[in-house]
Amino acid sequence: MPDISKRAELIQPFHVMKLLARARELESQGKNIIHMEVGEPDFNTPQPIVNAAMEAIKSGEVHYTPAMGLLQLREAISNYYLTQFNVSVSPERIIVTPGASGALLLALSAIIEAGQSVLLADPGYPCNRNFISLLEGKSQLINVGAQTSFQLDTELVKQHWEKNSTAVLLASPSNPTGTTISKQNLTGIIDYVNEKNGCVLVDEIYQGLVYDIQPSTALSISDEVFIINSFSKYFSMTGWRVGWLVVPDKFISVADNLAQNLFLAAPTPAQYAALAAFNPESIKILEQRRVEFKARRNYLLDALPKLGFTIPVAPEGAFYIYANCEAITENSFEFAELCLEQAGVAVTPGIDFGVNQAEKYIRFAYTTSLESLKEAVSRLAKLVNELK
Amino acid sequence: MPDISKRAELIQPFHVMKLLARARELESQGKNIIHMEVGEPDFNTPQPIVNAAMEAIKSGEVHYTPAMGLLQLREAISNYYLTQFNVSVSPERIIVTPGASGALLLALSAIIEAGQSVLLADPGYPCNRNFISLLEGKSQLINVGAQTSFQLDTELVKQHWEKNSTAVLLASPSNPTGTTISKQNLTGIIDYVNEKNGCVLVDEIYQGLVYDIQPSTALSISDEVFIINSFSKYFSMTGWRVGWLVVPDKFISVADNLAQNLFLAAPTPAQYAALAAFNPESIKILEQRRVEFKARRNYLLDALPKLGFTIPVAPEGAFYIYANCEAITENSFEFAELCLEQAGVAVTPGIDFGVNQAEKYIRFAYTTSLESLKEAVSRLAKLVNELK
Repeated sequence: MPDISKRAELIQPFHVMKLLARARELESQGKNIIHMEVGEPDFNTPQPIVNAAMEAIKSGEVHYTPAMGLLQLREAISNYYLTQFNVSVSPERIIVTPGASGALLLALSAIIEAGQSVLLADPGYPCNRNFISLLEGKSQLINVGAQTSFQLDTELVKQHWEKNSTAVLLASPSNPTGTTISKQNLTGIIDYVNEKNGCVLVDEIYQGLVYDIQPSTALSISDEVFIINSFSKYFSMTGWRVGWLVVPDKFISVADNLAQNLFLAAPTPAQYAALAAFNPESIKILEQRRVEFKARRNYLLDALPKLGFTIPVAPEGAFYIYANCEAITENSFEFAELCLEQAGVAVTPGIDFGVNQAEKYIRFAYTTSLESLKEAVSRLAKLVNELK
Repeated sequence: MPDISKRAELIQPFHVMKLLARARELESQGKNIIHMEVGEPDFNTPQPIVNAAMEAIKSGEVHYTPAMGLLQLREAISNYYLTQFNVSVSPERIIVTPGASGALLLALSAIIEAGQSVLLADPGYPCNRNFISLLEGKSQLINVGAQTSFQLDTELVKQHWEKNSTAVLLASPSNPTGTTISKQNLTGIIDYVNEKNGCVLVDEIYQGLVYDIQPSTALSISDEVFIINSFSKYFSMTGWRVGWLVVPDKFISVADNLAQNLFLAAPTPAQYAALAAFNPESIKILEQRRVEFKARRNYLLDALPKLGFTIPVAPEGAFYIYANCEAITENSFEFAELCLEQAGVAVTPGIDFGVNQAEKYIRFAYTTSLESLKEAVSRLAKLVNELK
């Protein structure tokens, strides 16, 4: 047998997976575990979306779609941009993908040459780096902190852009921090990078999940960006595996070729389901959920500091709080183990999102009920007291 | 904007896509087109499989599964190997993937270093090469012909294995030729390649679709192979996007890491659907379809030579006939255009499968009814007569 490839060897398993396995073990022993580690809404897919899938399946719509996706769905996404954001995006530029993973793989495949680098914020979503190394590109991780809302800004990009840099990958709202990037910085970065013949990719998969501000898209600023989006989070469609990618005009034809080769097409039942995602009945349900997420966030923003956590930047979106725990522990991974073992609360340690002060941070996901969150806070209060 | 990456630029669109677009145009003008270009069974997904999906969706099984797939499904696949082939394959070695595309990407990512090469038969399935170049690997295309049943054999592999070769990718039954590899050659290749610290990948996605022989698997010969399989073809589940990969023990852990990063998990509704694929009621329906495919194949094996095509090796499986058309035309691509324009029959030109004598070959897919095939043959007879 050959060796495992270097790129594959380099991929770290998510540390939270080890915690999750241990959580399941504890649960099988009868222990109650509150899950605040899961990056998945606790809500089921809204019924109108489920119904659309069932009708499609019943009527035999289970064959391959075109590689770029069902034209109706691409048109529906285009219409969503028009009605929600007042932005005109031709359906031709929209590729339906198997989740945001498919979108990210496709976009990066289209632009990265071996040896070229992509600028990324640390902390950030860990899979991004692994897609880049898959393609023999390099990740230039840039430390970000509270002073830039845990986002890259124009200055940071200018400072770190190198000769072999080819792209900047942003996420707004971001995982794990829930923060968004300002229009000013987004514009500044796009202008600078385009000038350098590079390009900007923006992960907008938490787009609909913002709480004190209006949802926004980088497409309002420029057509010369790649947008990664997904039906998983706001639309509560995780397991269906359907997302989308918006590409600049220049990349339409190559995106079609890549889609044909990389995944053939996104799952057909999921595409028909997603057709109903923009219906007023679905949106009504989803907006109620957004209000519920907001209440959970607000509760934690109030409760966690009382336990000794600090939240350097109040998250505007997603369903995460990235909390500094250095007043409680010197090592957030060990602390996450304690949370699980002693308090029955599963959380994600900072190490899963990068190396920048990772040992000082914990990600709390509020993907469980307010009642459970309250119980979790009370358990954590007890643990923190014992540690004093 | 940056340039399109070299690897993406290198990807050729399938020529048949151009023909397909033209076919749709002709159809919209009211012309009747018989589709013999489609690599997708014309049958709907069997009802028991559809029912299993609907029940799962109804009961809210629409969240992420573990990255390696539902344990029950991995166990069901393991049981399939045991009962069908009398081979013991631990569920731990089985990864459920988003179609065979996901399986191929995962397997190749785990083994190829940049600059290493993979040996492939020409003609062969074109996406394979594109996955290899995505990973900055090299495809060593080896011309194969009737004398080796359009398959690689031990001699060819020995002749072409180089210092930087790392793997051999076989397909049995093969697309586009429908031929299978003999146990003797498969054993010889595996032995030779393992000795060289390389590995063998076998695409078995048409495994269940053989007509005069028993289905087989390379896992009967060795555990030290990668097997790519799919529910798309024999199980008539194309649009659901679910397949699987079997890896040697050494690669289990890295496969889990790669699955988490590359696609998170296969679509959940599809995985629940696939749980019913091995049920006796499903298999009964699928076996009836296999008999129907066999009748179609036999009809074409008799009819096409009468038109002037030669079929150098009778295909034992899949739903393709790779026919030599040099007695009729000097250019199979132009001939495919004529078939469409003048006879209303869509077929796939050899050029979509490689460069080895591609201009002399046409792939006929028998994924349409026997009645339609008869009509197609009669239209082609007329065309061929006119060309004389």
